[in-house]
Amino acid sequence: MQTSLVLMDDARRFIHDCLRRVGVPVAKLRCISDVILAADYRGVYGTGINRLELYLRDINQRYCRYDVEPQIISETVAAAHVDGKNAIGALVGNFCMDLAVEKAKKAGIGFVVAKRSHHIGLAAWYAFRAMAQGFIGLVMSNAAPMMVAPGTQTSTLGANCLAFGAKGKQSHIMLDMSTAMKEVGAIEWAMMKNEHIPDNWAMNDCGSPTCFPSLALAAQRLYPAGEHKGYCLSAMIDVLCGVMSGANYSTRIPRWWAECQGHSPDLGLVMLAIDPAVFVSDFEGRLDDFCERITSSCPVDENCPVKLPGELEKQHMYYVDDLRALPYPNVLLSKYKSIADMLCVEPLKLSFECKIKKKECD
Amino acid sequence: MQTSLVLMDDARRFIHDCLRRVGVPVAKLRCISDVILAADYRGVYGTGINRLELYLRDINQRYCRYDVEPQIISETVAAAHVDGKNAIGALVGNFCMDLAVEKAKKAGIGFVVAKRSHHIGLAAWYAFRAMAQGFIGLVMSNAAPMMVAPGTQTSTLGANCLAFGAKGKQSHIMLDMSTAMKEVGAIEWAMMKNEHIPDNWAMNDCGSPTCFPSLALAAQRLYPAGEHKGYCLSAMIDVLCGVMSGANYSTRIPRWWAECQGHSPDLGLVMLAIDPAVFVSDFEGRLDDFCERITSSCPVDENCPVKLPGELEKQHMYYVDDLRALPYPNVLLSKYKSIADMLCVEPLKLSFECKIKKKECD
Repeated sequence: MQTSLVLMDDARRFIHDCLRRVGVPVAKLRCISDVILAADYRGVYGTGINRLELYLRDINQRYCRYDVEPQIISETVAAAHVDGKNAIGALVGNFCMDLAVEKAKKAGIGFVVAKRSHHIGLAAWYAFRAMAQGFIGLVMSNAAPMMVAPGTQTSTLGANCLAFGAKGKQSHIMLDMSTAMKEVGAIEWAMMKNEHIPDNWAMNDCGSPTCFPSLALAAQRLYPAGEHKGYCLSAMIDVLCGVMSGANYSTRIPRWWAECQGHSPDLGLVMLAIDPAVFVSDFEGRLDDFCERITSSCPVDENCPVKLPGELEKQHMYYVDDLRALPYPNVLLSKYKSIADMLCVEPLKLSFECKIKKKECD
Repeated sequence: MQTSLVLMDDARRFIHDCLRRVGVPVAKLRCISDVILAADYRGVYGTGINRLELYLRDINQRYCRYDVEPQIISETVAAAHVDGKNAIGALVGNFCMDLAVEKAKKAGIGFVVAKRSHHIGLAAWYAFRAMAQGFIGLVMSNAAPMMVAPGTQTSTLGANCLAFGAKGKQSHIMLDMSTAMKEVGAIEWAMMKNEHIPDNWAMNDCGSPTCFPSLALAAQRLYPAGEHKGYCLSAMIDVLCGVMSGANYSTRIPRWWAECQGHSPDLGLVMLAIDPAVFVSDFEGRLDDFCERITSSCPVDENCPVKLPGELEKQHMYYVDDLRALPYPNVLLSKYKSIADMLCVEPLKLSFECKIKKKECD
């Protein structure tokens, strides 16, 4: 697969240029590009620059708004209900996590629930935001119905996501998962790389397992992770993010926004910040000890020591650091070349063209 | 497999008699038997009367105390840190969830973290406790290290549990899951019923998959549900319940308490109660609509409509209602006959002996 390198700075320049063209004010650019680039930097490519096209389309069609600010509808000392006003997802997400942290400073815990949100991108981003201030962060968001319950053939739940992060002195753990075997972005990425997918990720239109990304994307029927456990977790997330927030949920969410037809997706999210110091004095030291206990377990293959949650992503960051650039498939670059032409902005510039050693990033 | 019926009332009488013999005061009996019998009634047999033996042993050895009360160490308006004082798990669990509900009444959310807890039994019990007062309940507890991370051969995490419940007008959802493929109680139950287990539940001592419950129980190496996702979820639960609470975590927890040798297991738990009315006015109606959307999905087999989280357990309750008694394997009854003799209490009385149609309960 042909891959080309793009400097992080140029990727950011390109994202900003595109967003400016659809009207996003300068003050809001960085907040959006931060989340997009963090995803690619961590190797979670499905929700990185791959999602820019969708954001541009929804901003252009005003399903997603750049001229509004999220607003608190009601609040207690520890909880808040936010109206995201269909603002850009990253803005709603940051607003809610910052609010959760502020509440956690006073009450030990901050629990913020938003309706009328949009796609928030990398969920881990918001957990890191809480961790940067010494808090534990937990993030949930619902999504368009793309996942089938075990024993069914129609999608009634999203591949809803859950991120959880906690920081020690030397180590951290970062769980960032979809409740499906794999989120749709990973399938889009496989298609872009012209690769097959494992046949336990998704069904085709006939309800049979498929290893073709194109058939999986057409059918929009992902398998839940761990069968009924992934399904039940997805239901839990949708109850909290959708049913409880006043947002859309289940099949009320337009399927992959192709059906939007004049409506915003109206997604929901939950952000939780916890101050561990309320409960234990040496949380960071204890977390390091916890990580040490996990990593000292005996691996089946000596060359593959156990990985802490989030370690694969950390390794990908080192890989990008080594490359000094982001490796994007040429198919993606061609797609964004067309978009650049359409928006009259300078396309993504190739740092230098090369065949990169194929690396398992996900 | 020979199964006999025991009336619920007699099962309760037996539990109370045994607990009295090891010193548990009358006022605390009901609270313990409620949780035990709720598990058997719901078909979660591994954590039902099957666990009584362990409770009796730990109470007898004073690893688990009946003469203490859980105590609040510190609190805010929305959060509390509780010292379970190694009291009986059900008492700590009820105390913490009731406290979480009280806090949620004032702050919209109540978040209670306990150390020095013991085995709490059916996690769903505590979520139902919150639901009975109109709240959403979320329960987490850590456990002895019995689960291997993907690619490893030693157990460093427990089959930590997560329960989540929310109630509509007509329907409810109740997710109650272990982060392992199956919790150890289910394997004990299979052994009691002289059944094989699927080979994706656990390893044997050599690190290979096994379908023999005896080998699985000896090795104490369960597989995580959904591979790395179950492992990461288990780590998240241990960070919150163990690392953050000041309780034991990971390999600090004695392995299946055989290693206790003078120590209490010092488990941790988290109870979260949420008042949905803080966020949306018609939560119950919306939850019913959510459930309706899930159940209306097209099943692969018309005779097997999709089940909401918790529906299998509801069906088991109807089954027990039909029987008018709890079906226990004769091997279990023999074990408790010996314990009854030892404690000089009347054994479990058989309602009438019969071969019960084998039913998939789990």
